[in-house]
Amino acid sequence: MNWSAVRRLIFGSPLMTEQLEHQRLPKILALPIFASDALSSTAYATQAILFNILVAGTHTLHLTVPISLAIVVLLWIVVISYTQTVHAYPQGGGTYIVSRENLGINWGLLAAAAILTDYVLTVAVSITSGVQQITSFFTNLAPYQTELALAAIWFLTLANLRGARESGLLFAIPTYFFVIVLLTTVAVGVFGPLVGYHPKQYQPPPGEQIAPMIHAVSLGLILRAFASGCAAMTGIEAVADGVQAFRSPESRNAAQTLVLMGAILSTIFLGISYIVQHYGIIYLGHGGGHGGDAHAESVISMVARVVFHDNPIFRAVILFATAIILVLAANTAYADFPRLSSILARHGYMPRQLSNLGDRLVFSNGIILLAVFTSILVVLFGASVDRLIPLYAVGVFTAFTLSQSGMVRFWLKQKAPGWQWKVLINGVGAAATGVVLLVIIIEKGPHGAWLVVVVIPIIMWMFTQVKRHYEKVRARLTLIGYHPEQIPPHTVLVLISGVHRGVIPALEYAREIAKDCRAVHIEINPTETQRLKDLWEQWGGDLPLVIIESPYRSLIGPVVEYVKQAQAEHVRHLITVVVPEFVVTHWWERALHYNAAFMIKLALGNIRGVVVTNVRYWLD
Amino acid sequence: MNWSAVRRLIFGSPLMTEQLEHQRLPKILALPIFASDALSSTAYATQAILFNILVAGTHTLHLTVPISLAIVVLLWIVVISYTQTVHAYPQGGGTYIVSRENLGINWGLLAAAAILTDYVLTVAVSITSGVQQITSFFTNLAPYQTELALAAIWFLTLANLRGARESGLLFAIPTYFFVIVLLTTVAVGVFGPLVGYHPKQYQPPPGEQIAPMIHAVSLGLILRAFASGCAAMTGIEAVADGVQAFRSPESRNAAQTLVLMGAILSTIFLGISYIVQHYGIIYLGHGGGHGGDAHAESVISMVARVVFHDNPIFRAVILFATAIILVLAANTAYADFPRLSSILARHGYMPRQLSNLGDRLVFSNGIILLAVFTSILVVLFGASVDRLIPLYAVGVFTAFTLSQSGMVRFWLKQKAPGWQWKVLINGVGAAATGVVLLVIIIEKGPHGAWLVVVVIPIIMWMFTQVKRHYEKVRARLTLIGYHPEQIPPHTVLVLISGVHRGVIPALEYAREIAKDCRAVHIEINPTETQRLKDLWEQWGGDLPLVIIESPYRSLIGPVVEYVKQAQAEHVRHLITVVVPEFVVTHWWERALHYNAAFMIKLALGNIRGVVVTNVRYWLD
Repeated sequence: MNWSAVRRLIFGSPLMTEQLEHQRLPKILALPIFASDALSSTAYATQAILFNILVAGTHTLHLTVPISLAIVVLLWIVVISYTQTVHAYPQGGGTYIVSRENLGINWGLLAAAAILTDYVLTVAVSITSGVQQITSFFTNLAPYQTELALAAIWFLTLANLRGARESGLLFAIPTYFFVIVLLTTVAVGVFGPLVGYHPKQYQPPPGEQIAPMIHAVSLGLILRAFASGCAAMTGIEAVADGVQAFRSPESRNAAQTLVLMGAILSTIFLGISYIVQHYGIIYLGHGGGHGGDAHAESVISMVARVVFHDNPIFRAVILFATAIILVLAANTAYADFPRLSSILARHGYMPRQLSNLGDRLVFSNGIILLAVFTSILVVLFGASVDRLIPLYAVGVFTAFTLSQSGMVRFWLKQKAPGWQWKVLINGVGAAATGVVLLVIIIEKGPHGAWLVVVVIPIIMWMFTQVKRHYEKVRARLTLIGYHPEQIPPHTVLVLISGVHRGVIPALEYAREIAKDCRAVHIEINPTETQRLKDLWEQWGGDLPLVIIESPYRSLIGPVVEYVKQAQAEHVRHLITVVVPEFVVTHWWERALHYNAAFMIKLALGNIRGVVVTNVRYWLD
Repeated sequence: MNWSAVRRLIFGSPLMTEQLEHQRLPKILALPIFASDALSSTAYATQAILFNILVAGTHTLHLTVPISLAIVVLLWIVVISYTQTVHAYPQGGGTYIVSRENLGINWGLLAAAAILTDYVLTVAVSITSGVQQITSFFTNLAPYQTELALAAIWFLTLANLRGARESGLLFAIPTYFFVIVLLTTVAVGVFGPLVGYHPKQYQPPPGEQIAPMIHAVSLGLILRAFASGCAAMTGIEAVADGVQAFRSPESRNAAQTLVLMGAILSTIFLGISYIVQHYGIIYLGHGGGHGGDAHAESVISMVARVVFHDNPIFRAVILFATAIILVLAANTAYADFPRLSSILARHGYMPRQLSNLGDRLVFSNGIILLAVFTSILVVLFGASVDRLIPLYAVGVFTAFTLSQSGMVRFWLKQKAPGWQWKVLINGVGAAATGVVLLVIIIEKGPHGAWLVVVVIPIIMWMFTQVKRHYEKVRARLTLIGYHPEQIPPHTVLVLISGVHRGVIPALEYAREIAKDCRAVHIEINPTETQRLKDLWEQWGGDLPLVIIESPYRSLIGPVVEYVKQAQAEHVRHLITVVVPEFVVTHWWERALHYNAAFMIKLALGNIRGVVVTNVRYWLD
């Protein structure tokens, strides 16, 4: 089995470090990678609003467009805010960097923790929503939503382990296809009547009659729907994190991409909300209807039915375009989670293995970590997008608020020309997202968001523990104040079970590395000791042979005891224990020999000043 | 977590080798250990006869006692035959020793393979029959028969890992209790009518009417029933295997125990068969009736119903006494399987780990091996005693035949006084058991015995492969013809990731063990190389520093390459690779460091003339 050939087939050939520069992306390829998260939010944002307001009855449906408009206003505040960030941080700001540099390290860690959880939720929500689109068409696949979601996650993981540029090429076409399909659908739904094409009114399926649950429309209800609809804004910050992936001029290209993305996103989101409200689409999610969780038809699917009069081909095209862009949205997190982890690792807040570029120039360990966390979340929540959405916005809006606050401090410190205007823009952004964050925590906390509120401080605590460990290590390892000591006395003990050719290399090695060498035999079967002594006379040369009784027939105990005893012979006495080891020809032959070397190594591993060495003897 | 304390609690304190002698048993304790297998056969022997003859219809029931009588005659032939073995082999004969010494090594290995499979089946059949007794009383436990059987197997395993003497004390009382209970039951059933107590006739439960399947009674049918009933004889050989466990005079005590055992066994077996035939008990096993496999009531349970007029207390006592002795029967195999394995291991036919006495003076590895095989068998056969019985007698009768044939050769060679008489006795034994073996293979082969017929040669083949390996090793390891060579040139390479206190012990160690030392650094991040060189100027002393580029950021590949290059510098060039390793304070801190030492060891493990050594640095 040639592992490196298998590896190359799956992950591609290794890439040289010099090839890193070439992985930067033109705008046309950067847009699908960085905008897919934001654009794909249209797949579940309107649905999340409906899921919340319709519990009061169908008369609340007319709130859909107003709530959506409020969200779009907030969205543009944030987009404009972020264009300033992109210009201020051409090396790739990202919330962590901006918060850390302007607000201080602890706010930076809060931002990092928030945004890492957000990335995990991005993958979880996008993938489960993508699966919902698929099962809306192939209704008989509904029972397998968890399996489908896991398969999608691990497919993405493999694709990302292969590297970023190929991802760009692979994912560009479906993103543009989605934009064209959804803009067309919205245009037909909204403007069709002007040219005489009339979409049909929505008819709930025969089994799915909603109970006439007429409640008064409360402020809380509207805020909850608004908070859930804010899922539409997730992903906007991705561009700011990844400025460095753009071709130069990085900032300009990134800012243009950001604005273009905001425009497309607003259009599709508002268009869908308009169609939903105008044609009376009802979404109750996993809680209502007849089929429960697995059989909830997605809002996108119902929009397609309404606009194209139940035509299955149009519906299939729309649903698959949506499903694919949702998978690509998850891919945004695959670009950014490992990138942020590597920055945190370089700063000492995460294990330093995360800072390594793999042999395909991607942060392989971070990619795998993301896949594992997401898989756990998907399984825990039964791959239900309606149950995952309440968790989603906490991390994002924490990051928005910190990032914009940081920018306010940035301009205040810099006082560059026109700084007042810049402070105002980012200040409005910070205030607006901060207020929305509070609304989200209060209104969605009881519906699952509490989990994120608990997890973020735990992650922050882990950051500080890791940092403390590395600092301790650094302090221990410094050579400042180090004075070389005298070379200590050295004794080599060769453990022998008998006198035969297998121990000769070990004895030779011992003679090679020290003057004081001793052969040590643990006597398990006393009847064989005399034979051993006779053979030693003949072959042992000048090396002393130490025989140790083992009344309980244990090998390890007496070895440990003798090593400790030998150590006590001198101050700073260095002991090397040489264990001869057979190398057998076939794997099954291993089972026919005591494999004592490993056990001895384990037992002596806690004794300082002892080195354990295996000297191997090949049997073939 | 103090593993040795847990270990002591479960397995008991270690015992000294000198304590081995004390583990020998007086007859009163030896009987339960060695006779329980044979005695417990009464639980399933009559049942096995019924299971076979009743397929032809209830008119065959009158064949039960005649077939049982034939089996008892065979049983006494074998018992008398074995008393001769016990005297001829006071050191503990056993079939393997007798066959090997008198018939040659290959017949010995056949005997060993046969008897090892027999031990596994003894445990499987006894435990599943024991479970059947329990589920005959607690019928609602029937669906859990496999789980109950596995629990019993692993309980026994633990008890045996603790050691033989405690087993003796633990198991004596239930064995004698079983003998008393069953002899009483048989006495009441057989002689009750003489004093005016009349057991009731058997009535099948309402649901369980047997179809009137009247076939003619064929010779094949009778032979099949006879072959199955021979399961009654399993376990007789146990005493001969374990003569050494008796107090001296070993042979005399063993022979007396053997005869006493034969007498009790014959009485109970014939008594049960008489009651079955006289009161019309019907057993169809898992194949017939309404409930299938799990709900077959055992013959012992029906005998208890008949004799004591359905009294539940009497039935409970009889069933539990039977169940417990069946568990003890399995225990016979726990004494003998590891013992035989250790002999075979000492002869080089099984892995030598099996020859070791554990710290409780039992052959721990053999005990665990038996438990594993048995568990597999029980799961494969769904813990059904009726499906396991056809496999059972092949191994036993192969062993009987070989053992008695061996004894014939033994007397022919020895020609001790009265040898003609002894040859006749063992000759009759060999001939009778040989014929029965053929009957068993022909009649039971198609019903599962083929599996044993296939497995035994496979085991023999494994014996020879293991032996061949050890002989090859011995030939390689001999010092005859060995001439010491010149001590080869030695170079030490210390792999360093940086210059800090953690690598100092490794550099010191390298200087200690060789004159030609080099520090080797794999350059993963070229920007840090200059800093490393500067630090090396200051702290590296006279040791040369080798810097190796790694364009693909891999650590292992360049190390392997450089080691091979260094080896080529001299003929027989010995290379030691020293890998500095951190020892962290808490286990979770391990995840924060590259643990490269293990990977490097693995990669260099295939290169001859290379020794890999970790030198540890404690961070606390």
